[in-house]
Amino acid sequence: MKKVKYGLSALGLAIGMAATGMSMSVSAAKPTLSEADFEKAQLHYFQRCAGCHGVLRKGATGKNLEPKAMLKKGQKRLEKIIALGTEGGMNNFDDLFNKQEIANLATFIQMTPPVPPEMSLEQMRSHTKEYVALKDYPTKPLHGLNWKNFFVVIERDAGKAAIVDGDTKKIVTHINTGYAVHVIKGTEHHKKDHAKDVGRFWYTIGRDGKVNKIDLWQKPEKMLVAETKMAYDARDIAVSGDGKYVIAGGYWPAHFVIMDAETLNPLKVVSTRGYNTKGEFINEARVAAIYTAPNESAFIVAVKETGKMLQVDYSDLDNLTITAIESAEFLHDGFFDPSGRYFQIAANASNKMVVVDTKDAKLEKMIEVDSLPHPGPGANWVDKECGPVGGTTHLGVGLVSVWGNDPINRPEQAWKLCYEVETDGAGVFIRTHETSDYVWADQLKHPEPEVQQSVQVFDKKTREIVKTIRVTEEPGKAALHMEFNADGSEVWVSVWNRKDNKNPTGEIVVYDAKTLKEKARIKGLTTPTGKFNVYNRINHKT
Amino acid sequence: MKKVKYGLSALGLAIGMAATGMSMSVSAAKPTLSEADFEKAQLHYFQRCAGCHGVLRKGATGKNLEPKAMLKKGQKRLEKIIALGTEGGMNNFDDLFNKQEIANLATFIQMTPPVPPEMSLEQMRSHTKEYVALKDYPTKPLHGLNWKNFFVVIERDAGKAAIVDGDTKKIVTHINTGYAVHVIKGTEHHKKDHAKDVGRFWYTIGRDGKVNKIDLWQKPEKMLVAETKMAYDARDIAVSGDGKYVIAGGYWPAHFVIMDAETLNPLKVVSTRGYNTKGEFINEARVAAIYTAPNESAFIVAVKETGKMLQVDYSDLDNLTITAIESAEFLHDGFFDPSGRYFQIAANASNKMVVVDTKDAKLEKMIEVDSLPHPGPGANWVDKECGPVGGTTHLGVGLVSVWGNDPINRPEQAWKLCYEVETDGAGVFIRTHETSDYVWADQLKHPEPEVQQSVQVFDKKTREIVKTIRVTEEPGKAALHMEFNADGSEVWVSVWNRKDNKNPTGEIVVYDAKTLKEKARIKGLTTPTGKFNVYNRINHKT
Repeated sequence: MKKVKYGLSALGLAIGMAATGMSMSVSAAKPTLSEADFEKAQLHYFQRCAGCHGVLRKGATGKNLEPKAMLKKGQKRLEKIIALGTEGGMNNFDDLFNKQEIANLATFIQMTPPVPPEMSLEQMRSHTKEYVALKDYPTKPLHGLNWKNFFVVIERDAGKAAIVDGDTKKIVTHINTGYAVHVIKGTEHHKKDHAKDVGRFWYTIGRDGKVNKIDLWQKPEKMLVAETKMAYDARDIAVSGDGKYVIAGGYWPAHFVIMDAETLNPLKVVSTRGYNTKGEFINEARVAAIYTAPNESAFIVAVKETGKMLQVDYSDLDNLTITAIESAEFLHDGFFDPSGRYFQIAANASNKMVVVDTKDAKLEKMIEVDSLPHPGPGANWVDKECGPVGGTTHLGVGLVSVWGNDPINRPEQAWKLCYEVETDGAGVFIRTHETSDYVWADQLKHPEPEVQQSVQVFDKKTREIVKTIRVTEEPGKAALHMEFNADGSEVWVSVWNRKDNKNPTGEIVVYDAKTLKEKARIKGLTTPTGKFNVYNRINHKT
Repeated sequence: MKKVKYGLSALGLAIGMAATGMSMSVSAAKPTLSEADFEKAQLHYFQRCAGCHGVLRKGATGKNLEPKAMLKKGQKRLEKIIALGTEGGMNNFDDLFNKQEIANLATFIQMTPPVPPEMSLEQMRSHTKEYVALKDYPTKPLHGLNWKNFFVVIERDAGKAAIVDGDTKKIVTHINTGYAVHVIKGTEHHKKDHAKDVGRFWYTIGRDGKVNKIDLWQKPEKMLVAETKMAYDARDIAVSGDGKYVIAGGYWPAHFVIMDAETLNPLKVVSTRGYNTKGEFINEARVAAIYTAPNESAFIVAVKETGKMLQVDYSDLDNLTITAIESAEFLHDGFFDPSGRYFQIAANASNKMVVVDTKDAKLEKMIEVDSLPHPGPGANWVDKECGPVGGTTHLGVGLVSVWGNDPINRPEQAWKLCYEVETDGAGVFIRTHETSDYVWADQLKHPEPEVQQSVQVFDKKTREIVKTIRVTEEPGKAALHMEFNADGSEVWVSVWNRKDNKNPTGEIVVYDAKTLKEKARIKGLTTPTGKFNVYNRINHKT
């Protein structure tokens, strides 16, 4: 086929062919796969690689994997990298894929990335399902359980959410959700809304863009009450402070969707494609995190690749006002300070914590931290010298960074590093509770099993690590993500059964929050990941 | 080449291949052109077709011209349509292109549209040029002329702007600008800014995205003082009320760019790609019109294909707040009411005038009008029964529609049709002046020369046409676009030399605004189009 150029030379528009697709003819002579192998490699790429490298493979948390660079590396070297990982942060995949699958993935990334299709509001609406009619919603809980101490638990590789009773430690039910649910959020306890059923409805977002609504007042087998789909690939979801809207963010298409919180009917879709902080156009400008601003009628939407924090005013969807706050790339995940005014989010490729002031809808500060900050649910507490502080773990280094976060009463400490605590391994999640003397950090990113399987606990007063807890010793398992129960007396830690991820051989280990001793093991869970205690999440102070 | 599919069937993502580029392999057996002919047809398409049909040929004002539909029509039929036009509004092009060029265009539109590249802020900045240093700007006019009665005149097909002295009717200079300048705007007389040099600087936007800054205080040969380029294809430009910023809107890439008004250095680029009112993603979401809101620190950006009016607050570029006001497709051009609060814009494919309230940043009203409204610079005046009114011509019908536009004092008439005036032919521009008894409308879209070459004048009191003025009788010429001089005593009408567009054989005909009699002919202009009187444009009341 003839190579064509978009060159309007007579107008002085000497411009080359756009990358997308148009170079496919060239790649005909390059590495190829059978249609079946291509689809399978594409599926594997979507499930395990796209999160860091992007479906268009332009790179983000991971490196650029476009054919130009990949063809230079070549089949053999790529196979090795995929199998064994790199020191730069790439995981090893020889425990998940066999040799042939790895070889096909290596070939796949030397081929032109297929551009996935768009998704219209009409297409989304075609997925909207009502499992329980609104008129049939119960007016009080249909079970005798203490639902405010329920834990909603992501069972990642099962495509399920488990409801676990915090009082009895029993699994109430497993609910079918989207693939690899990433986040689950409930209605929060905002000042405008003191309804007694706050925390009753929970919303899940699958990596496949599927959104599910869970009603904790229902009989266990009927808790899944509605469903829709807002993207092919997605990561985060939030509920408006007034409980009216649910918002979810897409990785592909790069957009966010505002839905009716009652029916999940998609109402509004807004593209996040745009320009990064350097002024380069990003087609795959993915929504990394979405939160509800506790004090404003606004959502906070973090667009990973453009480094833009969008403050989205949901009070008028037809005349939608968005403030695009310039910060740094690549935005990932964050958490509010206890006042609810400041949102603290990791810009991991910039090694910064970005702070947004939601009252004035503007950038408050950027704090320099260490390699690849990742706070997960984050942690706020009070330090004896710095006053109110926030803290984060890092994907790139075994370190907890702690900064002052009360600019009103402690301006001289605010948004400056207060202290750092070295841990044995790089981690993903940090957590504490207002009643607790301790801060917990996991070490999931450390390659050695004994570290990956341990979490570390440090004392808020002495700032020293007081205990290293080996949560599991079983091969192929890892410890991650802590959550306190309603009264703060227990800490729940997940154990991933990464190697045996088709079976419910994962567990949650429950520790006494004061003695740090093991209290219970909740078995029968498949790759339990994020856990959300109803009471804690509707009263977020830590 | 193998056809690949983006089908993640295991996840239930049964989704087809994206249209862009990926189907090129299929078109190898389809109509082709040599590389040289392809480039030439592409250039012709860009110059004459893309405005209505889009570079990606998805259609807007014009029909969808993607290969699927075009292959069905076939070479012969397409050649005929291009040569002779259609009753649906397609122009004839047999006077502009020869038979071979028409044949190649017919083939070109059966081939896959090449996707033009993006343009980064850095690329734009590489085009920024200073012709006169800021420190060398004069502190008073360097000529003895009455610059406030200058007319800045677009010489479309010459890629020039002429400065014409309204007092002497002499051409002061021709300034080299971008290709086919579409709009020129000066600083306006806003309440916050009563500087004596308001109206001194003018900014042009070429269809090639070139932006030029003109200083009317300079010596004629030095009036071009700065330049940049913000897109490959563009249409509109505006200056902020405080004179600090210039904003221009791209057709491709679909974005707007805010520049420093002193140096033209591009500061900020914002993508306009997004979803239309039906919730479908539009990659080619073009900026049709950009205006400065006289009473707010805001630009109004009309995105044609998405039907979104963006109110862009320019008071903080780092935390940029934009309200996306949902209206109707396809937005085209508009004008403010005399109070400066309401912006009235044509949504031509919906046969509506959309009214935006810039004080509250929300949709005020949509007024049903006739086929394809197009007000150009628009006209506001006072009607004896309806009070303050606005009016528009239509591309699709010989009709002026007039509506009440004072919701504060005349709420019962506001945003309702007051009356209509039938003209002999469909037109593009309407204009009046506060001192004039008359409203002028052109008839550029009428196919017959005698109508196309005439403008019609109606009386504001009687609402009746009082005169039809044959502006030119020369073959291949057409009359269009009226502008009053500073004191409102004259009306200037352009005469396009469409057939002889390489030579300065166009003219401006000047009429006495009271007697409606011809006063003068200003010759030596190439396809004179829009004309902007300095005084009138900085004091827009009509």
